Amino acid sequence: MKGIRQLADHLDISIGTVSRALNGKPDVNDETRRRVLEAAEKFGYVANQAGRSLRKGATGIIGFMMQTGHEITGQGDTFFMSVFDGVQTVLARHKLDLVALLCSSEEDPDAYMKRVVARGFADGIILSATRYRDDRFGTLHKAGIPFISLGRSRSDVGQPWYDLDFEGMAETAIDRLVAKGHKKIAIGRPEGEINLGYVFEERCHAALARHGLRLDPAHVFRSRPNESGGYKLARNFIAAPAQPTAMVLLNEATVIGFYRGLEEAGLTPGREVAVIGQYSPLVQFLSPRLTCFRPALRDLGVAVAESLLSTMPAFADAYPQAPRQCLWPMNFIEGESG
Amino acid sequence: MKGIRQLADHLDISIGTVSRALNGKPDVNDETRRRVLEAAEKFGYVANQAGRSLRKGATGIIGFMMQTGHEITGQGDTFFMSVFDGVQTVLARHKLDLVALLCSSEEDPDAYMKRVVARGFADGIILSATRYRDDRFGTLHKAGIPFISLGRSRSDVGQPWYDLDFEGMAETAIDRLVAKGHKKIAIGRPEGEINLGYVFEERCHAALARHGLRLDPAHVFRSRPNESGGYKLARNFIAAPAQPTAMVLLNEATVIGFYRGLEEAGLTPGREVAVIGQYSPLVQFLSPRLTCFRPALRDLGVAVAESLLSTMPAFADAYPQAPRQCLWPMNFIEGESG
Repeated sequence: MKGIRQLADHLDISIGTVSRALNGKPDVNDETRRRVLEAAEKFGYVANQAGRSLRKGATGIIGFMMQTGHEITGQGDTFFMSVFDGVQTVLARHKLDLVALLCSSEEDPDAYMKRVVARGFADGIILSATRYRDDRFGTLHKAGIPFISLGRSRSDVGQPWYDLDFEGMAETAIDRLVAKGHKKIAIGRPEGEINLGYVFEERCHAALARHGLRLDPAHVFRSRPNESGGYKLARNFIAAPAQPTAMVLLNEATVIGFYRGLEEAGLTPGREVAVIGQYSPLVQFLSPRLTCFRPALRDLGVAVAESLLSTMPAFADAYPQAPRQCLWPMNFIEGESG
Repeated sequence: MKGIRQLADHLDISIGTVSRALNGKPDVNDETRRRVLEAAEKFGYVANQAGRSLRKGATGIIGFMMQTGHEITGQGDTFFMSVFDGVQTVLARHKLDLVALLCSSEEDPDAYMKRVVARGFADGIILSATRYRDDRFGTLHKAGIPFISLGRSRSDVGQPWYDLDFEGMAETAIDRLVAKGHKKIAIGRPEGEINLGYVFEERCHAALARHGLRLDPAHVFRSRPNESGGYKLARNFIAAPAQPTAMVLLNEATVIGFYRGLEEAGLTPGREVAVIGQYSPLVQFLSPRLTCFRPALRDLGVAVAESLLSTMPAFADAYPQAPRQCLWPMNFIEGESG
């Protein structure tokens, strides 16, 4: 690891400018900032916070990186609030604080993570919204910062991860629908590069194939992970060729819009169309009752925090048994919708 | 402002212990930690982050303090996500990052804020969930940290604040219901010390009085600000003495539960019971359509960030016109429910 002086020498820029670039001050031009951040990453520079270095693990802060932005409104909400609650329960035992590192949807998450690392912000990081390929894993790994991912990625570097068991959800939902006689089953998954969409679609393919059925590409619907996205899903579902008779919805926020879209078309979940989805606190206000999968999110937060701390020397002794990788169960709740 | 050495001398504790106490390390006993944090606050000690002090405003970070915890699930969500989006748009102009400072509902917000200050974490702070009396205002004021409150408080110290215009909402809703012939109007407000509940209730009182009506104390319902809270509100509303005929709901997350509770009792909003509420993205999926008030939340985020920056020397020049105090308008949307 290099200090700020070596970084400045290498770049032939003054220490003051390097410091301002690292600290996000406005009076540095973009090209200089880019060069500084690149070099900082290359040389593993980590900000020295009054002697508290990230590597020594002494900021007292655990960062939870999440995406923000208007098109994901509806998502960032109850899911994260419940997980945070569990994470904080564990961190409180060690006088650690949780902060949410908010990456705007208009910003590249990889660049954001490089800045977080350069700023020397947290003792450990929890990543969410993991993508199929995700450079944040490599950035954290190279910098030697303890982290855990809530979700998997092809960019896995052997770090601990916890992920909801979307494979299990796919299997159970497909088996159930096939047993009820459905042959044309559609799925709804988030648009974009979020890894869970791939995991889920792949397993639905496989589960249908086991029954000698195929997942029609025209029956794989992508949407924004919010209420309006679900409403559009319903309209696309209704207009689809070779009309499917059942829908498995991956995202919990889409359910309410999907119900509404069906209702407007005179279709009732569980009667003309089978619907299986993911639980959210809103589900209890839907009629007919949704058949769905419910993960224990607060407990997930507890487990994720313990797993992360088990990889950090200062806390590892307290968690000798914490699993490092885990597919987190989704409990099946029988409803009337499918 | 004192440095860490003076703090250690004053307390007759080693610098190392003071540093560990300030940084939340687990190996400091609670009594020592309490003494260190108290002295740090008393002497205005601010952590020196590799020479970047809070007072100089150079961490590159703006902190948004919010409450977390299972009983507020449903609240923290779409409201904050939209506001964050606006705040980040402004901060991005100045290469500033937004982090959410997550205070667990099991922790005292005042103690939490003292720790944030002692850790020297952010250049500026946005407070939310302001209480009727709120010691965080004084803590930040004494430490000289620029901040703005999203919400007011009796503990106002002359800092900038933005608040949703709940007074305007109260006036318009009451006038409308009275004009439609309602005489027994109930209100739903959050339980606890959140300031907006007081503001709203007081103005509803006054608005009814203008019409020669009174707000029956038995018709002031308090609930948790989430879906289940709204459901309980409905049950309490239905069981209330001197049956009210109309309900004005302050919190947007309660609406869906309130609808459900009425529906179960065979009551339809806009028919047997008038309902006026606050907009959320879920409202469009309610039937009958909710008569409601909708603030432009992303724009509010923009305005709040600009107002905060206008008080920070490094950024003030860019925002000479930013209002320091503002009642943010709630646009009235006519629906079928009341």
